Amino acid sequence: MTEPFDAVEVIAAKRDKHELDDAQIDWVVDAYTRGVVADEQMSALAMAILLNGMNRREISRWTGAMIDSGERMDFSSLSWRTADKHSTGGVGDKITLPLAPLVAACGIAVPQLSGRGLGHTGGTLDKLEAIPGWRAALTNDEMMAQLEDVGAVICAAGPGLAPADKKLYALRDVTGTVEAIPLIASSIMSKKIAEGTGALVLDVKVGSGAFMKSKGQAQELAETMVSLGHDAGVTTVALLTDMSTPLGLTAGNACEVAESVEVLAGGGPADVVELTVELAREMLAAAGKDDVDPADVLASGGAMDVWKRMIAAQGGDPDAALPTPKETHVVNAPASGTLTRLDALSVGVAAWRLGAGRSRPGEQVQAAAGVVMHAKPGDQVTAGQPLLTLQTDTPERFERAVAALDGGYDIGVGHVDSPSVVIDRIR
Amino acid sequence: MTEPFDAVEVIAAKRDKHELDDAQIDWVVDAYTRGVVADEQMSALAMAILLNGMNRREISRWTGAMIDSGERMDFSSLSWRTADKHSTGGVGDKITLPLAPLVAACGIAVPQLSGRGLGHTGGTLDKLEAIPGWRAALTNDEMMAQLEDVGAVICAAGPGLAPADKKLYALRDVTGTVEAIPLIASSIMSKKIAEGTGALVLDVKVGSGAFMKSKGQAQELAETMVSLGHDAGVTTVALLTDMSTPLGLTAGNACEVAESVEVLAGGGPADVVELTVELAREMLAAAGKDDVDPADVLASGGAMDVWKRMIAAQGGDPDAALPTPKETHVVNAPASGTLTRLDALSVGVAAWRLGAGRSRPGEQVQAAAGVVMHAKPGDQVTAGQPLLTLQTDTPERFERAVAALDGGYDIGVGHVDSPSVVIDRIR
Repeated sequence: MTEPFDAVEVIAAKRDKHELDDAQIDWVVDAYTRGVVADEQMSALAMAILLNGMNRREISRWTGAMIDSGERMDFSSLSWRTADKHSTGGVGDKITLPLAPLVAACGIAVPQLSGRGLGHTGGTLDKLEAIPGWRAALTNDEMMAQLEDVGAVICAAGPGLAPADKKLYALRDVTGTVEAIPLIASSIMSKKIAEGTGALVLDVKVGSGAFMKSKGQAQELAETMVSLGHDAGVTTVALLTDMSTPLGLTAGNACEVAESVEVLAGGGPADVVELTVELAREMLAAAGKDDVDPADVLASGGAMDVWKRMIAAQGGDPDAALPTPKETHVVNAPASGTLTRLDALSVGVAAWRLGAGRSRPGEQVQAAAGVVMHAKPGDQVTAGQPLLTLQTDTPERFERAVAALDGGYDIGVGHVDSPSVVIDRIR
Repeated sequence: MTEPFDAVEVIAAKRDKHELDDAQIDWVVDAYTRGVVADEQMSALAMAILLNGMNRREISRWTGAMIDSGERMDFSSLSWRTADKHSTGGVGDKITLPLAPLVAACGIAVPQLSGRGLGHTGGTLDKLEAIPGWRAALTNDEMMAQLEDVGAVICAAGPGLAPADKKLYALRDVTGTVEAIPLIASSIMSKKIAEGTGALVLDVKVGSGAFMKSKGQAQELAETMVSLGHDAGVTTVALLTDMSTPLGLTAGNACEVAESVEVLAGGGPADVVELTVELAREMLAAAGKDDVDPADVLASGGAMDVWKRMIAAQGGDPDAALPTPKETHVVNAPASGTLTRLDALSVGVAAWRLGAGRSRPGEQVQAAAGVVMHAKPGDQVTAGQPLLTLQTDTPERFERAVAALDGGYDIGVGHVDSPSVVIDRIR
């Protein structure tokens, strides 16, 4: 077969700061999926895109080409309207767990195709797999049946959805090209558009524990993704939310499930409750449902009912005891005063090193590993009292986890406002 | 084995415009040679280097790491002093053929490790292989013996010299990363320094037929290479020479050998003679030999004697008839007047398309293919008289070769200065 383009010409065009035209983009994404464009060619192109950028038209076309590399799902046969949420990833970000059943309990189905964690950010599937019996892999038919029956499903994306993105993401992960906003935006949006959700709310994290360290970067990513959603006819809204400090009081797997269940039971940390309700409101509004307040539904126990049915539908026992760590190590507050800073990245790296996360795709994670926090920024702490509890099944990991926390928190004097969770809203 | 660095960290450092430190450079070049750093990682790093640059220290260290990836040759046992020349590649650039025997005839041995052509620039070995019986591959012992006996050798670099560069060059060729000045400079200089020459003259081409299209780029490359030579204790000089129009009146394989023999016989095009003598003067000066004028030696026939012995030593018959093309096609001047422009790139691409060059490493080339020019810029031409003769064994190639020449020359009125061959000298 004669190829219409040469990979080197396409790479050189972006290297030399030219726009790629539609035909070049369609070809390079398709040819990469077919293996005609080699990994070493795509990684050079990805680096050129990272450093020289792509404009809106190029990003939109790139996203479309990734969608066209695989199947598209269709929820139009459901009796429910649908809304989905995507978070760009953070530390302690268990929001999907209470959010999906809450929105379903409010009357909008949530088809949540989730991923696994890599590096210091946790993965929703890794967390749910701490529940005995729960399985992440569903066929498309199983997913549709569960959505119709329960209204919420959290499962792994099948291999047929945007295969170009799967291949490209694995390549970017090992070639230092994850951090390109055009590629992050097209990766996320190609999967969400191919999934066929009717409405989408994006939780774009900003701060030390997020990919986007600055508000400006996060805004650029959010605006790019919102415009891609609109181009594809999906009602899309983005919230910029704080990831300078972990969400809630847990970062890990089983410990985050336990905290999510607390929220569903009407308790839990205020920031987790606030973000869950706020994102639920956005999802309901994007799906056109404005006659119910998710705070009321959460208080009523309706979300907990859906949670139990959702977990049970995927083989999990929602009432089973969660795994507990073989060993714990307590970090005590070195001084008395106000906890003025608790750094998200430090806690995320500590949880990763304890075994909650993985360094390479395919690595096993420990269900019981993680960090439990005993204070949030703004709280008063007392010298010698527990500040953090580290949990793992492999105690040789404590040393490097403790090292990750070195310089990760400050104790001072006076009052500190806890950071507001939602920083900005982009639509 | 535990690696001291992670490839992604090194890539990310250059991506984020940081300097790579010595240990990072040593590791990444060595680990790439060992296969621990994968092709897709090195190509991303090469693109980051191309777009973000390297400073002098980084380039020098990178060059040293490539030298250290293989063996170093040593000519100190020879009874001769040595000098070598490297051209960055152009159209009709057969200068090595008369130059090596000329310098040897002047008393300085020339150990010329040459390459094959790729794309529109010819390769010295491809040209010499047009001579019946001549072989490019010599062992190190054969090379040393011939250098001592004849004073000149033109042969292929063995696999032991800078293997990191061989692997990296092949990767750059398919990933759009050839055009990085730090990588071009370190590629050339690692081989020349490892080869062990005592003095080195660089012929840095500038113009449409060269890699460096602008004088500024060529100067940067020349200055970088000269400083790398000095850092390694090799007396190094660079000439910037014109490649806006082809050198001489031939571009191809056998036809360039024939033109080189004309020069050795005391004839040949003025620009080829001028550049050959000028480069010989620089090589002799760099090797500390100032008691002989290469123009006199050329006129005496001494260089022709060395040429015949050099060719014969490698199995070639210097008196054999050269291959002739099966078919020729003449392009006539469309108007009368002064040839005001004859574009090097157009002629180079035409010769390549006629079969003189290759598109992929390993492809066969045609010995008899090429372009013979009947006029140089500044010459008067008459409408209907031959301007260019195209030569090939496969006449279906004529159409695309003629297309390459479309717009490649201008005929006008009045006087045009022929461009000066040597533009600048950098040491």
